[in-house]
Amino acid sequence: MTEERIKDMLDAREYKELKEELETNMYPVDLAEILEEFDQKHMVLVFRLLAKEEAAETFSYMNSDMREDLINALTDSELEEIMEEMYLDDTVDVLEEMPANVVDRLLMVTDAEKRQQINQLLQYPEDSAGSVMNVDYIALRREMTVADSILKIRQVGLNRETIYTCYVTEQRHLIGQVDIKELLTSSESKTVEEIMDTNMLYARTTDDQEDVANIITKYGLIALPIVDHENCMVGIVTVDDAMQVLQDETTEDISIMAGVNPNEDSYFGTSIFEHVKSRIPWLLFLMLSATVTQMIMNSYENALALMPQLAGFVPMLTGTGGNCGSQSSTLVIRGLAVGEIEFSDLFKVIWKEIRIAFCISIILSVVNGIRIMLMGQGDAMMAFTIGLTMACTVLIAKVVGCTLPLIAKKIGLDPAIMATPLISTLVDISTISVYFAIVSYVFHL
Amino acid sequence: MTEERIKDMLDAREYKELKEELETNMYPVDLAEILEEFDQKHMVLVFRLLAKEEAAETFSYMNSDMREDLINALTDSELEEIMEEMYLDDTVDVLEEMPANVVDRLLMVTDAEKRQQINQLLQYPEDSAGSVMNVDYIALRREMTVADSILKIRQVGLNRETIYTCYVTEQRHLIGQVDIKELLTSSESKTVEEIMDTNMLYARTTDDQEDVANIITKYGLIALPIVDHENCMVGIVTVDDAMQVLQDETTEDISIMAGVNPNEDSYFGTSIFEHVKSRIPWLLFLMLSATVTQMIMNSYENALALMPQLAGFVPMLTGTGGNCGSQSSTLVIRGLAVGEIEFSDLFKVIWKEIRIAFCISIILSVVNGIRIMLMGQGDAMMAFTIGLTMACTVLIAKVVGCTLPLIAKKIGLDPAIMATPLISTLVDISTISVYFAIVSYVFHL
Repeated sequence: MTEERIKDMLDAREYKELKEELETNMYPVDLAEILEEFDQKHMVLVFRLLAKEEAAETFSYMNSDMREDLINALTDSELEEIMEEMYLDDTVDVLEEMPANVVDRLLMVTDAEKRQQINQLLQYPEDSAGSVMNVDYIALRREMTVADSILKIRQVGLNRETIYTCYVTEQRHLIGQVDIKELLTSSESKTVEEIMDTNMLYARTTDDQEDVANIITKYGLIALPIVDHENCMVGIVTVDDAMQVLQDETTEDISIMAGVNPNEDSYFGTSIFEHVKSRIPWLLFLMLSATVTQMIMNSYENALALMPQLAGFVPMLTGTGGNCGSQSSTLVIRGLAVGEIEFSDLFKVIWKEIRIAFCISIILSVVNGIRIMLMGQGDAMMAFTIGLTMACTVLIAKVVGCTLPLIAKKIGLDPAIMATPLISTLVDISTISVYFAIVSYVFHL
Repeated sequence: MTEERIKDMLDAREYKELKEELETNMYPVDLAEILEEFDQKHMVLVFRLLAKEEAAETFSYMNSDMREDLINALTDSELEEIMEEMYLDDTVDVLEEMPANVVDRLLMVTDAEKRQQINQLLQYPEDSAGSVMNVDYIALRREMTVADSILKIRQVGLNRETIYTCYVTEQRHLIGQVDIKELLTSSESKTVEEIMDTNMLYARTTDDQEDVANIITKYGLIALPIVDHENCMVGIVTVDDAMQVLQDETTEDISIMAGVNPNEDSYFGTSIFEHVKSRIPWLLFLMLSATVTQMIMNSYENALALMPQLAGFVPMLTGTGGNCGSQSSTLVIRGLAVGEIEFSDLFKVIWKEIRIAFCISIILSVVNGIRIMLMGQGDAMMAFTIGLTMACTVLIAKVVGCTLPLIAKKIGLDPAIMATPLISTLVDISTISVYFAIVSYVFHL
């Protein structure tokens, strides 16, 4: 269903038909996207037509402005229905973004047991496994038979987000897990203990959500159980949430790597002012850092006045240095993000980059030397001088590029900060220092 | 289990204990990683200790060199067992990377039916949904009851990679799907038709695997059914494969964005020679492109000889231009990758970037003007000239940065090519042209 079709049906007051079409032909995530374009009145109107499950799911996909509008327009009993239908992890996401008065109103319409669970979840640090986990899962006991277990799933399954993996607990401690496939294909009289897998992975509530998502990807899991500091099982992180976490974290990394402070909204959902605000800090910082480069160049003013053609090589040298540095830093940042490279690999990485830099600088210096002579931009001496500068630049760029992200990780900063923009500015400074030091020595300037 | 522990047990010839420990304490994906460090003889020795399911799974996680070594060492009947146990999508992955003689040997030990399916899958283009899909899924008919369906899952489930979602087909056409949760929580006498969901998503065998993975993420699916050009259901793509696809595609994008030709191996798994080979093409191309910048600067040699301090502003201007351009191109490239931005948004994006550029250039020009005057690097006229150049640079950088990835997408290139390295070189050229045109006009050089 398209936006136009919904609007036409609203205008024609075909509410009953619209309600039916929404139920059969529309996914909540798509509807939430379409409703973004509606004014408040029409958005609320469409929302009220939804069955309560669809309403709750659509609500969980909306952006925070839409949610607030909607909460203000709905009655307490309507809100109560939505709060009842929403999975706990989505509820917590919603509450985290709402102003205090809205949170109060939402908590008021929630029953006491759920309210307690919500308050518990709200206490986990942002981006921790606890903050994305779901507390609804199927718990079995080891002495239950397969038939008992299936009966339990039949009874409670409808209220659980996932039933694909069931967890075996004893005094709230996780002792095993059983896949639904195992349950369905085992003899009904077997006990859970006989078929459960005791060699299972789990994470802690305080673990970083990105690490949890990486485990789920690496081992191809449907859900990962989460335990608290007393090793009691408190919830699960499901694969769909893990995919969302990975996508968001990657977008965040890529933004930071380009010198843009990440924000949670989409490109079009971010205002001009917000875009400027997230881009200007790095631009200002890097522009002012370039003052150092300028001061170095100005101190060679006399050399430049004598041989103005020296200036022409500057963009090529700094550009190549920046590119070499960003290649290394990017590969290391990505290696850190997917868990392939760790701080302990520092010297292994540096040694690898030095050897790579050696090969690359020979190729670039030779090709560039030939170019200089062919284009008549200088003699063999100039070709040699530029080649030497190029070699130093490549080496410095590769070593700085691979080292800084690892150090950032070690001291608890986001390695993505150490990407292209910062590396190129640092490499610019070293390239120009080396360049003018070499040329003024060689040409006695 | 650590690498050392396995080696110790091998040295002590404690094969039986090792076999037991491997079965209970080891995940195939971790074992494949550890075996990478072993020599061929020990690797084969450990591999032969594995139960056939674990062996097949470990094999599917190995890199191609290890697989080849292993295939050469194993007997035909051992290979046959592995081929029998491996899921079809993994088998196809293995075969795609093997030399022809190895493929022949593997196909020889495979039974006829499976061989036919493999040959079918091998025909799908690389990176298509067909090439990553699995042909093992549970198919139901609409007239079956819930009890019949559960019985069918009991019988065939063990050989299927996933039973979480079952698909309802009629003459091989997909007509609905039923989640295992729905089956388990419905009355046994209901028919599949009564409980099936007919409003389901699917993709085609020829669709891009990244698009399929994005659908699975967006809608939080466990699997997506794949149909052929005659709309017959031929397989499913499961969420674990989708996560792997997304992670690989993101790593590929990030590499390309840093001017590194992507390869499938890890950072440490790639040799120095391979690293150089994947980094040198862009470095050479960009270095030689910088010749244009140099030619422009050389044509202003006289101006530089008169006012050598002009050269000092060059790295700051080109650096800022490059950073502005990479901010825009990166945000657009990511927006394209996650499906938020499309080519049809071209003018919307350009208009947004123009307004952002306007705000940013005012801030940067003013701050930089104050800096120039405070540091005595020039008078008000110089501050104005640099400010004007800065404004033009920011505008050009933002517009070029946001436009090129969209055009690349439109003409079928990977938008990630249009990232920082290429954008900075293009922006360098325009910045320097604008800069010298403005200064020579203002200062009558």
